[in-house]
Amino acid sequence: MKPHLRKDIFSSCWVIINDERSKRPNDYVDSNIICPFCPGNEKQTPVAILERKRGNKWYIRVVENKYPALVENNNNVLEKEGIFFKYFFNGRHEVIIETPLHRENFYNIKHLSEIFEVYSFRMNYLYSLKNSKYVMLFKNYGVNAGASLKHPHSQIISLPIIPVRVEDEVKRFRYYFYKYRRCLMCDVIENEIMLKKRVFYIDDFFIVFAPFASRFNFEIWIAPLKHEKDFFNEENFNGLADIFRLVLKKLHRIFDDLSYNMIFHTAPKNVENFHWHIEILPKLAMPAGFEWGSGFYINSVSPEQAIKILKLGKKIN
Amino acid sequence: MKPHLRKDIFSSCWVIINDERSKRPNDYVDSNIICPFCPGNEKQTPVAILERKRGNKWYIRVVENKYPALVENNNNVLEKEGIFFKYFFNGRHEVIIETPLHRENFYNIKHLSEIFEVYSFRMNYLYSLKNSKYVMLFKNYGVNAGASLKHPHSQIISLPIIPVRVEDEVKRFRYYFYKYRRCLMCDVIENEIMLKKRVFYIDDFFIVFAPFASRFNFEIWIAPLKHEKDFFNEENFNGLADIFRLVLKKLHRIFDDLSYNMIFHTAPKNVENFHWHIEILPKLAMPAGFEWGSGFYINSVSPEQAIKILKLGKKIN
Repeated sequence: MKPHLRKDIFSSCWVIINDERSKRPNDYVDSNIICPFCPGNEKQTPVAILERKRGNKWYIRVVENKYPALVENNNNVLEKEGIFFKYFFNGRHEVIIETPLHRENFYNIKHLSEIFEVYSFRMNYLYSLKNSKYVMLFKNYGVNAGASLKHPHSQIISLPIIPVRVEDEVKRFRYYFYKYRRCLMCDVIENEIMLKKRVFYIDDFFIVFAPFASRFNFEIWIAPLKHEKDFFNEENFNGLADIFRLVLKKLHRIFDDLSYNMIFHTAPKNVENFHWHIEILPKLAMPAGFEWGSGFYINSVSPEQAIKILKLGKKIN
Repeated sequence: MKPHLRKDIFSSCWVIINDERSKRPNDYVDSNIICPFCPGNEKQTPVAILERKRGNKWYIRVVENKYPALVENNNNVLEKEGIFFKYFFNGRHEVIIETPLHRENFYNIKHLSEIFEVYSFRMNYLYSLKNSKYVMLFKNYGVNAGASLKHPHSQIISLPIIPVRVEDEVKRFRYYFYKYRRCLMCDVIENEIMLKKRVFYIDDFFIVFAPFASRFNFEIWIAPLKHEKDFFNEENFNGLADIFRLVLKKLHRIFDDLSYNMIFHTAPKNVENFHWHIEILPKLAMPAGFEWGSGFYINSVSPEQAIKILKLGKKIN
């Protein structure tokens, strides 16, 4: 069955049904697989869409995902099945192989800044595609974060509909602006700077903080101090690389076996009231039945406590 | 800090902040801990609220959760913090220790039916409490489902607000009824019986099926054929025990190391348009950045494929 979307009739959830993705290699489960992202194994991935090279050796490489969540169709097509619909909608799924090295977490500032440039370039391209409503950039690191390959990589998906979580966020930015004529994130940042207890780090350009309603243990957000709706301003990339490296180094020092998801929140097309930010969501505890059934989260480390521990910087596990 | 609720300002999420819960024992992480749910260790739990006994030995035991997600306050209290609010709201969290045996998955019908009776009794009691808006019953089994103790147990939480996911579902039942004058679940069941391809099992009283928009690999729902808004009809318990046992036996036969969450969906207080059902959500794959960032799910085993595999009944891992 071709990958397609299904809308849950009992909730606001959309599900991508994709039998192909069960064939993905997983080097957390099977340590004998040959890493398709390592130099020399380039033939195991689709052809490169983009390569940053030094001499004839690539150091950043972008390919289409071999097991894409969604695929490119010529047109969006609906198929009825009793009272249900299947949506064969356009999408595109790319992988950014961040480094030729199988195990490398801390890039130098220049390399990290170039990764951001590549993100920006590919995201803008995906936004230009027909039926592309939202482009999501994320990274899964470690087995508890749902990664299937260890080799450092991130992913970009172009979606035919604005995801419910993004729409929810956009609505809240818009509502706050109409009510107060101010940006929601700008006010949250002001609030955090005033209260001090959830700020991990601040410089002239960025703030790193644990959000008031942190869903996950040690959840960390990075936001620009200056109001900017999207991530695409290249002037930020060096400063962002600097602060990014600092946060991840600290997290990796405290937790031996860190798994995390990282999600870029940037304004959808034609949305003005937004303030981009990056969410780093460590996966130190598993969501359980209560979370799945309610949509609530239980967080056993308050963001205030998380910031104290992060500032102390001592190893926990 | 006392457990309390925080409302995310960027989304419709509620978070329970609870530093105490990080002290929970975890026998998946530390195999040397003494199981507080085994007979002889009763002093390690709060006193029993209810015990079903044979002679002087209990075989089902209900206690307050030693590390409750929410606690009982005399009154709901709000505390302002800059632009945020903390909600010190009433809640209660109980644990049903389902058996004295540390490793037992397949109870006989009579025992399982008695567990359902205990669920029903405690849920009704929690609904009678002041400020109790919704009572959620769930079970976490296995490390990937977020369980911290292996000894079979389930949990009931009384909540001061109707969770977003439940409210979403209630709205859809209500809207469907106003539009078609029919029950949404009754129509879904009719649809599934007609199409056949997602039905695992059906008898005179219950249907077991994989929902059209399954979020998780091998997601399975159990629903009564007869329209009933809540779970409290004791006449069902024997038949439910029968079918329940069958489904779990099959899942455990196919997957050696099965983790799952089980969630009872039953009508909130004063809600008429609902049709109760049980969701069994195996945790065979980890949700990743795409899921956390979008609210979408990617499912790599279509429900049609899952039913084929379940019917075949061969071991997978």
